[in-house]
Amino acid sequence: MADPRFFHRKGPFSIKEIADLTGATPVNAPDAERRFDDVAPLQIADSTILSFFDNRKYIDAFVGSHAGACFVRPEFADRAPQNMVLFTTDDPYRAYAKAATAYYPFETGNGVISDRAVIDPTAKLGTGVQIDACAVIGANCEIGDGTIIASNAVIGDGVVIGSGCKVGAGATISHSLIGNLCLIYPGARIGQDGFGFAMGPQGHAKVPQLGRVVIGNDVEVGANATIDRGAGPDTVIGNGCRIDNLVQIGHNVELGMGCVIVSQVGISGSTKLGNFVVLAGQAGITGHLEIGDGAKVAAQSGVMKNIGPGETVGGSPAVPVMDYHKQTVALSRLIRKKK
Amino acid sequence: MADPRFFHRKGPFSIKEIADLTGATPVNAPDAERRFDDVAPLQIADSTILSFFDNRKYIDAFVGSHAGACFVRPEFADRAPQNMVLFTTDDPYRAYAKAATAYYPFETGNGVISDRAVIDPTAKLGTGVQIDACAVIGANCEIGDGTIIASNAVIGDGVVIGSGCKVGAGATISHSLIGNLCLIYPGARIGQDGFGFAMGPQGHAKVPQLGRVVIGNDVEVGANATIDRGAGPDTVIGNGCRIDNLVQIGHNVELGMGCVIVSQVGISGSTKLGNFVVLAGQAGITGHLEIGDGAKVAAQSGVMKNIGPGETVGGSPAVPVMDYHKQTVALSRLIRKKK
Amino acid sequence: MADPRFFHRKGPFSIKEIADLTGATPVNAPDAERRFDDVAPLQIADSTILSFFDNRKYIDAFVGSHAGACFVRPEFADRAPQNMVLFTTDDPYRAYAKAATAYYPFETGNGVISDRAVIDPTAKLGTGVQIDACAVIGANCEIGDGTIIASNAVIGDGVVIGSGCKVGAGATISHSLIGNLCLIYPGARIGQDGFGFAMGPQGHAKVPQLGRVVIGNDVEVGANATIDRGAGPDTVIGNGCRIDNLVQIGHNVELGMGCVIVSQVGISGSTKLGNFVVLAGQAGITGHLEIGDGAKVAAQSGVMKNIGPGETVGGSPAVPVMDYHKQTVALSRLIRKKK
Repeated sequence: MADPRFFHRKGPFSIKEIADLTGATPVNAPDAERRFDDVAPLQIADSTILSFFDNRKYIDAFVGSHAGACFVRPEFADRAPQNMVLFTTDDPYRAYAKAATAYYPFETGNGVISDRAVIDPTAKLGTGVQIDACAVIGANCEIGDGTIIASNAVIGDGVVIGSGCKVGAGATISHSLIGNLCLIYPGARIGQDGFGFAMGPQGHAKVPQLGRVVIGNDVEVGANATIDRGAGPDTVIGNGCRIDNLVQIGHNVELGMGCVIVSQVGISGSTKLGNFVVLAGQAGITGHLEIGDGAKVAAQSGVMKNIGPGETVGGSPAVPVMDYHKQTVALSRLIRKKK
Repeated sequence: MADPRFFHRKGPFSIKEIADLTGATPVNAPDAERRFDDVAPLQIADSTILSFFDNRKYIDAFVGSHAGACFVRPEFADRAPQNMVLFTTDDPYRAYAKAATAYYPFETGNGVISDRAVIDPTAKLGTGVQIDACAVIGANCEIGDGTIIASNAVIGDGVVIGSGCKVGAGATISHSLIGNLCLIYPGARIGQDGFGFAMGPQGHAKVPQLGRVVIGNDVEVGANATIDRGAGPDTVIGNGCRIDNLVQIGHNVELGMGCVIVSQVGISGSTKLGNFVVLAGQAGITGHLEIGDGAKVAAQSGVMKNIGPGETVGGSPAVPVMDYHKQTVALSRLIRKKK
Repeated sequence: MADPRFFHRKGPFSIKEIADLTGATPVNAPDAERRFDDVAPLQIADSTILSFFDNRKYIDAFVGSHAGACFVRPEFADRAPQNMVLFTTDDPYRAYAKAATAYYPFETGNGVISDRAVIDPTAKLGTGVQIDACAVIGANCEIGDGTIIASNAVIGDGVVIGSGCKVGAGATISHSLIGNLCLIYPGARIGQDGFGFAMGPQGHAKVPQLGRVVIGNDVEVGANATIDRGAGPDTVIGNGCRIDNLVQIGHNVELGMGCVIVSQVGISGSTKLGNFVVLAGQAGITGHLEIGDGAKVAAQSGVMKNIGPGETVGGSPAVPVMDYHKQTVALSRLIRKKK
C-alpha cells in the first residue's frame, strides 16, 4: 500500500518464504504457499497484507485488525482475530524489519554518474557507484562499490567512503574515513572544525583542528546532524551506531559499538561512550566524561559525571533514574502540602 | 527604510487604502489621502512612516515615537504622541502584517528556469514556476503555479508541491505531498527515513520507512528543521502550521491545523497533536502521545503523558503549569530555609 | 602526525621561532635552534613533536608523555618528564593555538573560480577570491579579498562578505552584511525570515521580515546553525563571537563582542547580549531580555529574566548559580529523608 510514486515493491512472498527469511514460526497457516502482497500497519492492512504487533499499547488494533498475517509474540497469539495467519517470534519488530526489507529492498548504486556532478579526476570510484546531479567529489576521494552520493552532497578532498553507503542530498563530509553500509542522511555535516579556541578578553584564538572523523560500518547519521572532527585525536563512531536527526557530536568524542543517540542530543568534546549506550532525545552530555557500556540516559537529562556500565540516569543534573523519579514525586508532594 | 539591496518597496499607500486593507479605524486622521512611504519599528520611524504598537513592554517607544502613523489597540490611543495618525484595531500586529505585506509583497515565481538547474524531463511544472541554479528536480515531480525552487534545493522523485510555495536554498524534500502557499526554509529536510530499527545486541535492524510526509496549505517549515516520513502511516502536518528552525518531527507524527512549534522542539514518533497546539522552544514530546486542541507546552518542558484540550503544562517531566510554578516556588523556598 | 590526506604541514620550527611566535618562555632548552616537526596531543607525541598541557585533568598524560616539547603553566614545570623542552606561559592553550596555526595555516582563497559555479555578472569579487563548484552567487553581491565560497554554498542577492572569510559547503546566506575573517560552517543558515506572524484562530498572518543580519569581524557560525534576519531592526552579531553548531538565533537578537554560544543553544527574538557572554550547551533564552556583559549561563538552563553583568545562572527556570546548586542538593536530600 506504500505510495507507488515513492516505493517499488517486490514480492509477493509465501508463508514459507517469509518464515525462512525471518526465522518466525507460522501458526494457523495451513497453506505454506499462500502469498502476501505487501506489508502495512495493523490498522489499514487487509487479508492480502502482512503486518506486525510489537507495542502492546496497540493491542486493540491487533485484536481488530483485518491483516492476513502478522508477526506476534507467542503470548499474544490467542488474542489474534480468527483467520489471521500468525508468525510467532520473540522479536516481531525485527522479523517485520526483515520481511519489509524483502518487499522494499534498500537502494544501492545504479552505476550512473550524472554529467552534472563535479568529480575531481583523481577520485577513485568503485563499481556501481552512483553520483547524482550537482554532487561534488574532491581530489583523491575513494568511494566504494555500490555507494550512492545524492544530489548536492559535497565530499571533501581525501575522504574515504566504503561500499554500500548512501550519502543523502545536501550532506557534506570532509576530513573523514567512513566504513561500509553507512547511511548519511540529508544535510548531515561530518568532519568540519570542532569548537576549539583559546578564550580570552583579547579575543578567542582559533585552534587548528587536526584530527579526523572515523566512522565504522553500518552506521546511520541523521538529517542535519553534526559531527565535528577531532582536535588532534580523532572523533570516532563505532560499528552499528544509530545517530538521529539534529544530534551534535563534538570533537574527540568516541562512541563504541551499537550506540543509539536520539534526536537533538548533544555530546560535548572528548567524552567517550562504551558499547550499546542509549541517549534519549535532547539529553546533553558534558565534555571529558566516560559513559559505560549499556548505560542509558533519559530524555532531556544533563549528564555532568561519569556513568558506570549498565547504569540508567535521568534529570538535569542527571542522577540514578530511581532517584530521579523519587525527586519528581517529592517535588509534587511538596506542593500538595502547601495547598 | 528596509535596505534596498534586499527589499523592493511598493506604495506609498494612503490612510484610506491602509484602512481598507487592514480593517483598522483611522483616528486623528483629517486627510484620508495622506500617504505613508514605508513601515518601520516605532524607535526609528519618522513622520512618513507607518508603525505598530503591540507588546506593551514597548510603551515608552510608543509614547516617544516620531512615527507618522501607528496601529494600536483603542485603549492605548490616548497615550499616543500628538500628531500621530492612529489606526485602532484589536489586533495591531495582524493589521501591521497586512500593511507591511502591501509595502513588501511576498515573492512569487518569475517563470525563469535556470539553465543551471537539473530537471528531470518527466517533471511537470506549472505556470510561472521559478527554478534557480543548481536546484535538482526528480522524475515525475509536480510543481504548482508560481512556486519557487531556490538554488541547490533537491526535490526527490515523485514529490508533489502545490502552487505559490517557496522551497528555500539547499532544502531537500523526498517522499512528500505538499499543499499550496507553503514556505520551506533553507536547509529544511523533509521526507527522509525515520529513526526506525529493531534494537538488539546482534545489531540494530533497519526497518523500511514506507509512509510519506503530507503537508497541508499555508504551512511554514523553518531553516534546518527535519520532518521524517512515516514508517507505514504518514507523517501529517495540518493547514496553517508554523514550524520554526531546527525543529525535529519524528515519523508518523500528526499535527492538526494551526499548530505553532517553536525552535528546537522535538516531537517523537507517532505522537498526535490537535488543532492550534503551541509548543514553546526546546520542548520535547515523547512518542505515542495525544496532545489536545489548543494545548500549550512551556519552553524546555518534557512531556511524558497525554495532554487534554486547552491544558497548559510546564516542567520536565511536564505537569499542569500552575503546579510547575508552585514547584519552582517550593524549590526556592526549600533553599531559603536551609541558609 | 595529522593525516596528510587532509592536512598540509609547514615547518619545522625552532625553539627560538616558537618562542617568538607565541611569547612563551623556553625552559630546559639548551639549543635554541632545535626544531620540532609537528604538533600533537601529549598521549601520542614523540621527541620530534610539540604539545601542550592545559587541562589538569590530563596531568598523568603530561607526566608520562614522550613529547619533545610542551606548552605548560610555570607551576607544572617541575612535573615534566626529564628531557622535555618546556615553553612556560600563563595560557598554554593560546600559545598552542598560535604554534599549531604556524604548522597548519588557515586556508585562504586560491583565486580559482570554478567554471561550475554560478555567479551573477553583477557580483563584485575581490582579489584571490575562491568560488568552488556549484556555489551560487547572486546579483550585486560583494565578496572581499581572499574569501572562499565552498561548494554548493548559496549567497543571495546583495549580500556583502568581507575579506579573508570562508563560507562552508552548503551554507546559505541572504539579507546579510558580514565582516572580515569570518568562518561560516557547512549548512549554516543566515538571513532567512524570522518566525514572525500574528497568531489567531483565523490563521497565522505572516509578517514581512524587513531587517538584515549584520555580522562583525572574526566571527564563527557553526555547522547547521541558524540566524534569522531582523523583523525591522537588524539581527546583530558582534566582533569575535563564536557560535557553535545547531544554535538558533532569532530575529532582532543582538550579541555584543566575544560572546561564546555553545551548541544547541536557542536565543529567542529581540534578546540582547552584552560583551563576552557565555551560554553553555542547550541553554534557552526567552525573548526580549537583556543579558549583561560577562554573564554566564549553565548548560540546559532556561533563562526567563534579565541577567546582570558578570552574573552566573543555572537551572530551568534559571536562578543564580549558587542557588541552583543548593536546589540540586536540597532535592537530593529530600529523597534521602523519604527512604
